[in-house]
Amino acid sequence: MKVAILIEEFVEDVEFLYPYYRFKEEGWDVDVISPNRGTFKGKKGMTHKSDKSIVEVSPDDYDILFIPGGYAPDRLRRYPEVLEFVKKIYDTGKIVGSICHGPWVLISAGIVKGKRIAGYYAIKDDLVNAGAIYTGNEVEHDGNLFTGTDPSAMSELMKMIIEHAKKYS
Amino acid sequence: MKVAILIEEFVEDVEFLYPYYRFKEEGWDVDVISPNRGTFKGKKGMTHKSDKSIVEVSPDDYDILFIPGGYAPDRLRRYPEVLEFVKKIYDTGKIVGSICHGPWVLISAGIVKGKRIAGYYAIKDDLVNAGAIYTGNEVEHDGNLFTGTDPSAMSELMKMIIEHAKKYS
Repeated sequence: MKVAILIEEFVEDVEFLYPYYRFKEEGWDVDVISPNRGTFKGKKGMTHKSDKSIVEVSPDDYDILFIPGGYAPDRLRRYPEVLEFVKKIYDTGKIVGSICHGPWVLISAGIVKGKRIAGYYAIKDDLVNAGAIYTGNEVEHDGNLFTGTDPSAMSELMKMIIEHAKKYS
Repeated sequence: MKVAILIEEFVEDVEFLYPYYRFKEEGWDVDVISPNRGTFKGKKGMTHKSDKSIVEVSPDDYDILFIPGGYAPDRLRRYPEVLEFVKKIYDTGKIVGSICHGPWVLISAGIVKGKRIAGYYAIKDDLVNAGAIYTGNEVEHDGNLFTGTDPSAMSELMKMIIEHAKKYS
Protein backbone atom coordinates (compact mmCIF):
# COMPACT_ATOMS: atom_id res chain seq x y z
CA MET A 1 0.00 0.00 0.00
CA LYS A 2 1.38 3.40 -0.95
CA VAL A 3 0.32 6.67 0.64
CA ALA A 4 0.74 10.27 -0.53
CA ILE A 5 0.51 13.10 2.00
CA LEU A 6 0.40 16.67 0.71
CA ILE A 7 2.08 19.41 2.72
CA GLU A 8 2.99 23.05 2.33
CA GLU A 9 3.92 25.99 4.55
CA PHE A 10 1.65 26.38 7.63
CA VAL A 11 0.53 22.73 7.69
CA GLU A 12 -1.15 21.88 11.01
CA ASP A 13 1.80 19.93 12.39
CA VAL A 14 -0.07 17.20 14.24
CA GLU A 15 -2.49 16.62 11.37
CA PHE A 16 0.52 15.73 9.27
CA LEU A 17 2.61 13.87 11.87
CA TYR A 18 0.03 11.51 13.33
CA PRO A 19 -1.25 10.22 9.96
CA TYR A 20 2.35 9.97 8.69
CA TYR A 21 3.41 7.66 11.53
CA ARG A 22 0.08 5.84 11.66
CA PHE A 23 0.31 4.84 7.98
CA LYS A 24 3.93 3.75 8.48
CA GLU A 25 2.83 1.65 11.47
CA GLU A 26 0.85 -0.44 8.94
CA GLY A 27 4.06 -1.03 7.02
CA TRP A 28 2.88 1.16 4.17
CA ASP A 29 5.14 3.43 2.12
CA VAL A 30 4.46 7.10 2.74
CA ASP A 31 5.60 9.87 0.39
CA VAL A 32 5.41 13.44 1.61
CA ILE A 33 4.66 15.57 -1.43
CA SER A 34 4.64 19.33 -1.96
CA PRO A 35 4.31 21.61 -4.99
CA ASN A 36 8.06 22.17 -4.86
CA ARG A 37 10.43 19.92 -2.92
CA GLY A 38 11.67 21.58 0.27
CA THR A 39 11.22 22.14 3.97
CA PHE A 40 8.06 23.70 5.35
CA LYS A 41 7.34 25.41 8.62
CA GLY A 42 4.22 24.08 10.29
CA LYS A 43 1.56 26.32 11.81
CA LYS A 44 2.76 25.39 15.30
CA GLY A 45 6.42 25.90 14.41
CA MET A 46 7.89 22.51 13.55
CA THR A 47 9.81 22.01 10.33
CA HIS A 48 8.75 19.29 7.89
CA LYS A 49 10.52 18.01 4.82
CA SER A 50 8.90 16.76 1.65
CA ASP A 51 10.22 13.72 -0.23
CA LYS A 52 8.99 14.64 -3.68
CA SER A 53 7.54 17.49 -5.68
CA ILE A 54 4.14 17.14 -7.32
CA VAL A 55 5.68 16.99 -10.81
CA GLU A 56 7.85 14.02 -9.79
CA VAL A 57 4.87 11.79 -8.92
CA SER A 58 1.96 10.12 -10.68
CA PRO A 59 -1.50 9.42 -9.21
CA ASP A 60 -0.98 5.82 -10.45
CA ASP A 61 1.77 5.34 -7.85
CA TYR A 62 -0.56 5.74 -4.85
CA ASP A 63 -3.43 3.91 -3.17
CA ILE A 64 -4.26 6.53 -0.56
CA LEU A 65 -4.07 10.32 -0.50
CA PHE A 66 -4.18 12.31 2.71
CA ILE A 67 -4.40 16.11 3.00
CA PRO A 68 -3.77 17.61 6.46
CA GLY A 69 -5.16 20.99 7.54
CA GLY A 70 -3.73 24.21 8.88
CA TYR A 71 -3.20 26.84 6.20
CA ALA A 72 -1.22 24.54 3.90
CA PRO A 73 -4.44 23.76 1.98
CA ASP A 74 -4.80 27.46 1.09
CA ARG A 75 -1.40 27.17 -0.58
CA LEU A 76 -1.83 23.70 -2.12
CA ARG A 77 -5.01 24.69 -3.94
CA ARG A 78 -3.10 27.34 -5.90
CA TYR A 79 -1.33 24.67 -8.00
CA PRO A 80 -3.22 23.15 -10.97
CA GLU A 81 -0.84 20.13 -10.80
CA VAL A 82 -1.91 19.46 -7.21
CA LEU A 83 -5.61 19.72 -8.06
CA GLU A 84 -5.18 17.38 -11.06
CA PHE A 85 -3.34 14.88 -8.83
CA VAL A 86 -6.12 14.96 -6.23
CA LYS A 87 -8.88 14.65 -8.83
CA LYS A 88 -7.21 11.71 -10.59
CA ILE A 89 -6.72 9.79 -7.34
CA TYR A 90 -10.34 10.47 -6.45
CA ASP A 91 -11.70 9.58 -9.90
CA THR A 92 -9.97 6.18 -9.83
CA GLY A 93 -11.84 5.31 -6.62
CA LYS A 94 -8.80 5.42 -4.37
CA ILE A 95 -9.10 6.71 -0.82
CA VAL A 96 -8.90 10.47 -0.37
CA GLY A 97 -8.68 11.54 3.28
CA SER A 98 -8.61 15.09 4.59
CA ILE A 99 -9.10 17.01 7.82
CA CYS A 100 -9.79 20.48 9.18
CA HIS A 101 -9.03 23.09 6.46
CA GLY A 102 -7.85 20.30 4.10
CA PRO A 103 -11.20 20.16 2.25
CA TRP A 104 -10.38 23.56 0.69
CA VAL A 105 -8.23 21.48 -1.67
CA LEU A 106 -11.13 19.12 -2.34
CA ILE A 107 -13.32 22.14 -3.17
CA SER A 108 -10.81 23.42 -5.72
CA ALA A 109 -10.35 19.90 -7.14
CA GLY A 110 -14.11 19.97 -7.78
CA ILE A 111 -14.94 16.74 -5.95
CA VAL A 112 -17.20 17.74 -3.04
CA LYS A 113 -20.50 18.53 -4.79
CA GLY A 114 -23.32 16.42 -3.32
CA LYS A 115 -20.92 14.66 -0.94
CA ARG A 116 -21.12 14.48 2.84
CA ILE A 117 -17.99 16.29 4.04
CA ALA A 118 -16.65 16.99 7.52
CA GLY A 119 -14.30 19.93 7.92
CA TYR A 120 -13.38 22.69 10.30
CA TYR A 121 -16.37 24.92 11.02
CA ALA A 122 -14.49 27.98 9.73
CA ILE A 123 -14.73 26.60 6.17
CA LYS A 124 -18.34 25.47 6.42
CA ASP A 125 -19.56 28.31 4.17
CA ASP A 126 -16.99 27.44 1.50
CA LEU A 127 -18.02 23.76 1.59
CA VAL A 128 -21.74 24.54 1.44
CA ASN A 129 -21.22 27.07 -1.37
CA ALA A 130 -19.30 24.35 -3.26
CA GLY A 131 -22.33 22.06 -2.99
CA ALA A 132 -21.06 19.76 -0.25
CA ILE A 133 -23.36 18.39 2.44
CA TYR A 134 -21.96 19.73 5.71
CA THR A 135 -23.52 17.63 8.44
CA GLY A 136 -21.50 18.96 11.35
CA ASN A 137 -20.34 15.44 12.22
CA GLU A 138 -16.77 14.93 13.43
CA VAL A 139 -16.03 12.46 10.63
CA GLU A 140 -17.71 11.64 7.36
CA HIS A 141 -17.27 8.81 4.87
CA ASP A 142 -18.92 9.24 1.49
CA GLY A 143 -17.75 6.91 -1.25
CA ASN A 144 -13.98 7.13 -1.29
CA LEU A 145 -13.91 10.48 0.53
CA PHE A 146 -12.99 10.40 4.23
CA THR A 147 -13.03 13.68 6.12
CA GLY A 148 -12.81 15.03 9.67
CA THR A 149 -13.22 18.30 11.54
CA ASP A 150 -10.00 18.80 13.51
CA PRO A 151 -7.34 16.97 15.58
CA SER A 152 -10.03 15.59 17.90
CA ALA A 153 -11.44 13.65 14.93
CA MET A 154 -8.09 12.25 13.77
CA SER A 155 -8.11 8.94 15.62
CA GLU A 156 -11.57 8.00 14.36
CA LEU A 157 -10.75 9.22 10.85
CA MET A 158 -7.51 7.23 10.63
CA LYS A 159 -9.26 4.13 11.93
CA MET A 160 -11.92 4.44 9.21
CA ILE A 161 -9.38 5.03 6.46
CA ILE A 162 -7.16 2.13 7.47
CA GLU A 163 -10.05 -0.32 7.91
CA HIS A 164 -11.45 0.68 4.53
CA ALA A 165 -8.05 0.39 2.84
CA LYS A 166 -7.52 -3.11 4.23
CA LYS A 167 -11.03 -4.26 3.32
CA TYR A 168 -10.93 -3.17 -0.30
CA SER A 169 -7.28 -3.73 -1.17
CA MET B 1 -15.03 60.09 9.62
CA LYS B 2 -14.67 56.95 11.70
CA VAL B 3 -13.00 53.77 10.50
CA ALA B 4 -13.16 50.22 11.83
CA ILE B 5 -10.38 47.75 10.96
CA LEU B 6 -10.87 44.09 11.86
CA ILE B 7 -7.86 42.05 12.92
CA GLU B 8 -7.11 38.63 14.38
CA GLU B 9 -4.17 36.26 14.67
CA PHE B 10 -2.18 35.84 11.40
CA VAL B 11 -3.31 39.16 9.90
CA GLU B 12 -1.13 40.09 6.92
CA ASP B 13 0.84 42.75 8.74
CA VAL B 14 1.26 45.29 5.94
CA GLU B 15 -2.37 44.97 4.85
CA PHE B 16 -3.30 46.19 8.32
CA LEU B 17 -0.53 48.74 8.89
CA TYR B 18 -0.68 50.71 5.66
CA PRO B 19 -4.47 51.25 5.72
CA TYR B 20 -4.27 52.06 9.46
CA TYR B 21 -1.79 54.88 8.94
CA ARG B 22 -3.33 55.99 5.64
CA PHE B 23 -6.75 56.52 7.25
CA LYS B 24 -5.14 58.38 10.15
CA GLU B 25 -3.30 60.59 7.65
CA GLU B 26 -6.74 61.88 6.63
CA GLY B 27 -7.36 62.85 10.24
CA TRP B 28 -9.95 60.12 10.64
CA ASP B 29 -10.47 58.10 13.82
CA VAL B 30 -9.42 54.48 13.43
CA ASP B 31 -10.54 51.71 15.79
CA VAL B 32 -8.79 48.37 15.58
CA ILE B 33 -11.39 45.75 16.44
CA SER B 34 -11.11 42.02 17.13
CA PRO B 35 -13.52 39.35 18.39
CA ASN B 36 -11.85 39.57 21.80
CA ARG B 37 -9.66 42.48 22.83
CA GLY B 38 -5.96 41.55 22.87
CA THR B 39 -2.69 41.40 20.99
CA PHE B 40 -2.35 39.44 17.79
CA LYS B 41 0.67 38.07 16.00
CA GLY B 42 0.71 38.94 12.33
CA LYS B 43 1.51 36.43 9.60
CA LYS B 44 4.92 38.04 9.13
CA GLY B 45 5.64 38.15 12.85
CA MET B 46 4.75 41.63 14.08
CA THR B 47 2.48 42.08 17.09
CA HIS B 48 -0.67 44.17 16.76
CA LYS B 49 -3.02 45.39 19.46
CA SER B 50 -6.76 45.85 19.15
CA ASP B 51 -8.55 48.82 20.72
CA LYS B 52 -11.95 47.24 21.16
CA SER B 53 -13.74 43.91 21.05
CA ILE B 54 -16.58 43.36 18.61
CA VAL B 55 -19.17 43.35 21.42
CA GLU B 56 -18.03 46.81 22.55
CA VAL B 57 -18.83 48.47 19.22
CA SER B 58 -21.87 49.27 17.11
CA PRO B 59 -22.02 49.45 13.30
CA ASP B 60 -23.65 52.87 13.78
CA ASP B 61 -20.37 54.23 15.15
CA TYR B 62 -18.45 53.79 11.87
CA ASP B 63 -18.42 55.21 8.34
CA ILE B 64 -15.86 52.84 6.85
CA LEU B 65 -14.97 49.20 7.51
CA PHE B 66 -11.69 47.67 6.34
CA ILE B 67 -10.76 43.98 6.52
CA PRO B 68 -7.10 43.10 5.85
CA GLY B 69 -5.98 39.69 4.60
CA GLY B 70 -3.56 37.01 5.76
CA TYR B 71 -5.25 34.23 7.70
CA ALA B 72 -7.03 36.56 10.13
CA PRO B 73 -10.16 36.40 7.90
CA ASP B 74 -10.34 32.63 8.44
CA ARG B 75 -10.61 33.37 12.15
CA LEU B 76 -12.85 36.46 11.95
CA ARG B 77 -15.52 34.61 9.94
CA ARG B 78 -16.01 32.18 12.84
CA TYR B 79 -17.76 34.85 14.93
CA PRO B 80 -21.46 35.56 14.27
CA GLU B 81 -21.02 38.97 15.96
CA VAL B 82 -18.33 39.88 13.41
CA LEU B 83 -20.47 38.78 10.46
CA GLU B 84 -23.46 40.72 11.78
CA PHE B 85 -21.27 43.83 12.20
CA VAL B 86 -19.97 43.52 8.62
CA LYS B 87 -23.43 42.93 7.16
CA LYS B 88 -24.98 45.88 9.01
CA ILE B 89 -22.25 48.26 7.88
CA TYR B 90 -22.69 47.00 4.33
CA ASP B 91 -26.50 47.15 4.42
CA THR B 92 -26.47 50.80 5.49
CA GLY B 93 -24.45 51.68 2.37
CA LYS B 94 -21.25 52.49 4.20
CA ILE B 95 -17.89 51.66 2.63
CA VAL B 96 -16.66 48.10 3.12
CA GLY B 97 -13.07 47.58 1.94
CA SER B 98 -11.14 44.33 1.93
CA ILE B 99 -8.04 42.79 0.41
CA CYS B 100 -6.37 39.47 -0.32
CA HIS B 101 -8.00 36.73 1.84
CA GLY B 102 -10.23 39.34 3.50
CA PRO B 103 -13.22 38.59 1.23
CA TRP B 104 -13.62 35.24 3.06
CA VAL B 105 -15.35 37.39 5.70
CA LEU B 106 -17.53 39.01 3.05
CA ILE B 107 -18.51 35.52 1.81
CA SER B 108 -19.59 34.46 5.29
CA ALA B 109 -21.40 37.76 5.84
CA GLY B 110 -23.40 36.87 2.72
CA ILE B 111 -22.73 40.07 0.80
CA VAL B 112 -20.76 39.03 -2.32
CA LYS B 113 -23.44 37.37 -4.46
CA GLY B 114 -23.63 39.02 -7.88
CA LYS B 115 -20.92 41.54 -6.93
CA ARG B 116 -17.62 42.16 -8.70
CA ILE B 117 -14.99 41.21 -6.13
CA ALA B 118 -11.19 41.25 -6.26
CA GLY B 119 -9.33 38.93 -3.93
CA TYR B 120 -6.28 36.74 -3.71
CA TYR B 121 -6.34 34.05 -6.42
CA ALA B 122 -6.16 31.28 -3.79
CA ILE B 123 -9.73 32.12 -2.73
CA LYS B 124 -11.12 32.54 -6.24
CA ASP B 125 -13.06 29.24 -6.03
CA ASP B 126 -14.64 30.26 -2.72
CA LEU B 127 -15.69 33.62 -4.18
CA VAL B 128 -17.09 32.10 -7.37
CA ASN B 129 -18.92 29.38 -5.41
CA ALA B 130 -20.42 32.15 -3.25
CA GLY B 131 -21.82 33.80 -6.39
CA ALA B 132 -19.32 36.65 -6.67
CA ILE B 133 -18.07 37.87 -10.03
CA TYR B 134 -14.31 37.29 -9.94
CA THR B 135 -12.88 39.38 -12.75
CA GLY B 136 -9.20 38.87 -11.96
CA ASN B 137 -8.68 42.63 -11.75
CA GLU B 138 -6.33 43.99 -9.09
CA VAL B 139 -9.06 46.17 -7.60
CA GLU B 140 -12.82 46.20 -7.86
CA HIS B 141 -15.47 48.71 -6.82
CA ASP B 142 -19.07 47.53 -6.84
CA GLY B 143 -21.58 49.67 -4.98
CA ASN B 144 -20.12 50.19 -1.51
CA LEU B 145 -17.76 47.20 -1.76
CA PHE B 146 -14.09 47.97 -2.47
CA THR B 147 -11.72 45.00 -2.86
CA GLY B 148 -8.19 44.21 -3.94
CA THR B 149 -5.99 41.20 -4.65
CA ASP B 150 -2.87 41.62 -2.50
CA PRO B 151 -0.37 44.21 -1.21
CA SER B 152 0.42 45.32 -4.78
CA ALA B 153 -3.19 46.53 -5.06
CA MET B 154 -3.24 48.40 -1.75
CA SER B 155 -2.25 51.86 -2.96
CA GLU B 156 -4.90 51.90 -5.69
CA LEU B 157 -7.51 50.42 -3.34
CA MET B 158 -6.87 52.96 -0.59
CA LYS B 159 -6.99 55.81 -3.11
CA MET B 160 -10.40 54.61 -4.36
CA ILE B 161 -11.78 54.18 -0.85
CA ILE B 162 -10.61 57.58 0.36
CA GLU B 163 -11.82 59.42 -2.75
CA HIS B 164 -15.21 57.74 -2.50
CA ALA B 165 -15.49 58.48 1.22
CA LYS B 166 -14.74 62.17 0.68
CA LYS B 167 -17.14 62.46 -2.26
CA TYR B 168 -20.14 60.93 -0.53
CA SER B 169 -19.65 62.10 3.04
